[in-house]
Amino acid sequence: MTDNRELISSLITDVPDFPKPGVVFKDITPLLASPEGFQAAVDAIVEAAPGPIDVVVGMEARGFIFAAPVAVALGAGFVPVRKPGKLPRPVFEEAFALEYGTETLTMHRDAIKPGARVLVVDDVLATGGTIGATAKLLKKLDVNLVHVAVVMELSFLDGRRVLDEAGIDSFSAITTV
Amino acid sequence: MTDNRELISSLITDVPDFPKPGVVFKDITPLLASPEGFQAAVDAIVEAAPGPIDVVVGMEARGFIFAAPVAVALGAGFVPVRKPGKLPRPVFEEAFALEYGTETLTMHRDAIKPGARVLVVDDVLATGGTIGATAKLLKKLDVNLVHVAVVMELSFLDGRRVLDEAGIDSFSAITTV
Repeated sequence: MTDNRELISSLITDVPDFPKPGVVFKDITPLLASPEGFQAAVDAIVEAAPGPIDVVVGMEARGFIFAAPVAVALGAGFVPVRKPGKLPRPVFEEAFALEYGTETLTMHRDAIKPGARVLVVDDVLATGGTIGATAKLLKKLDVNLVHVAVVMELSFLDGRRVLDEAGIDSFSAITTV
Repeated sequence: MTDNRELISSLITDVPDFPKPGVVFKDITPLLASPEGFQAAVDAIVEAAPGPIDVVVGMEARGFIFAAPVAVALGAGFVPVRKPGKLPRPVFEEAFALEYGTETLTMHRDAIKPGARVLVVDDVLATGGTIGATAKLLKKLDVNLVHVAVVMELSFLDGRRVLDEAGIDSFSAITTV
């Protein structure tokens, strides 16, 4: 596992000044392009899941890339969290603040049976806005959010504080910077 | 396989009047939520792949959901095709016409080594615009597009014509309506 963490970490590369000057973007595309790296990331998230998982939830769009294969590996269902206007049936909505303006996420109201054991998977924990909003959506669905797993945590953005506020007490990151 | 096709087909449900009156939307979320259905769809695409695959390409956003687990299952790399402004390094761009206006897709210029054997995976073949633009991007990267696989083909929209124009001669759909 230690070796795999190093492999995974080495395949996430810094791109300076994206999406704007002064920001260093964490580019996961080299990790995805590596069969060994991508498999190792999926395996690490699967190992982090505490007990049986009924449903894996992934957030549009990059979250889908890790959450979907994790769902298949766990024999779980996959449920997408999407931006407004994408899901065709009645949804719950949750807005959260960005640096400028707000973002809204949606889930089908009947997406998951109440009480189901849910694993949330995303690529990066940054400010925690996306995962915090997802936790609030899952509370509306009355499911059991048992764990949140990400590939990379950007600890300097203090997203853990938002996770704490959202009542998330089981969290793992494969790699932390 | 026949049984699986019926299972997969039965889990894709019609939602009338979405995204606008008169359109019948094919909702794949019940398929994704079914562990058996989702696994069967991934397996069917894996079986459709002709020979070894180096890279699976998936298109933002729903395409990611099938393409990523197919990449893991095939031991291939995964490369995303994204909307403009999402990929952090230099990209190729390809625009295509929608009913109103145009859409643009992008790929990193160094995403795939020239000559690599590539499988393109998407959820639905509708008008063929997305897959046609992806084929043009792959031509710029000088790779070998060996097959395009989708979960559902909407044959009344005649997307095959666009695929033919793009020089795609190996295509499969799990289910066709």
